[in-house]
Amino acid sequence: MFFDQTIPPFIKILKNLSAILDKADAHATSRKFDVSILLNDRLAPDMFNLIRQVQIACDTAKLGAARLAGKTGPVNDDGEKTLSDLKERIKQTVAYLETFAPGDFAGAEERHITQPRWEGKYLLGEDYLLQHAIPNIYFHVSAAYAILRHNGVEVGKKDYLGELPFKH
Amino acid sequence: MFFDQTIPPFIKILKNLSAILDKADAHATSRKFDVSILLNDRLAPDMFNLIRQVQIACDTAKLGAARLAGKTGPVNDDGEKTLSDLKERIKQTVAYLETFAPGDFAGAEERHITQPRWEGKYLLGEDYLLQHAIPNIYFHVSAAYAILRHNGVEVGKKDYLGELPFKH
Repeated sequence: MFFDQTIPPFIKILKNLSAILDKADAHATSRKFDVSILLNDRLAPDMFNLIRQVQIACDTAKLGAARLAGKTGPVNDDGEKTLSDLKERIKQTVAYLETFAPGDFAGAEERHITQPRWEGKYLLGEDYLLQHAIPNIYFHVSAAYAILRHNGVEVGKKDYLGELPFKH
Repeated sequence: MFFDQTIPPFIKILKNLSAILDKADAHATSRKFDVSILLNDRLAPDMFNLIRQVQIACDTAKLGAARLAGKTGPVNDDGEKTLSDLKERIKQTVAYLETFAPGDFAGAEERHITQPRWEGKYLLGEDYLLQHAIPNIYFHVSAAYAILRHNGVEVGKKDYLGELPFKH
């Protein structure tokens, strides 16, 4: 259950985010401006910029899976500056998520999940999954999308959701 | 499983959205402008405004639960114009979600889920849940949040996530 709710959906939304960044890149090229203007934009002065939204989306996926499985994920230095840096960050995160198997999440439901800023408090695995990791990853991907949409990049809901496995 | 992944998280995020709307109301009052300016704002000319984002968040929750349980949800006419209309829409949606019990979702995993715009195609219940309903509800709540944040309303991640059930 934890595998199904984290690994495939997180991989999918991160790949969708990478494709959205490609559209941002194409948009900047066609309008002849530097895509770094988009990467450094934000929706409010005290809100994170696009680079940080992508980094946090990746971290939410990486740390969400790692913590629920009782593992320690790889460390990232958050030094991404360019669009290809961000795409590489997403690619590495997807590759990390692909190392997980369903059995890695044995006992995740009752696992005590914490992080430094919680000062010793913890969430049970299921609460962490449903009330923290899942809402958070979609929040940051949506924020990245919103920054680009606000700047005129032609992305739509289909880019966010990606291909759906329709049956006939 | 389907109950846990839909009913409590959807109720929670809709209640968080209602509290975020209260903050928008207080912000407009303190700045002495009509809150309908916020309700009708959007991040791009061809993107939905705040009213529509709230309506779709409610519909995603209502229809997501109803379809997975093989039920037909109540019909809404989308006539909301004021902040209190939107809060009432959220309240009614939460009340509908509260009518569900875990047993309502028996067989949801393999259920064929469709909607008019899919022209006869369908998703299996689990795909619909993980690749459509969940990403969508958080997308629209995040979009509502982003519109307000962009307009200077003092909301933060804690308003979006709501209270977390920390243990010591």
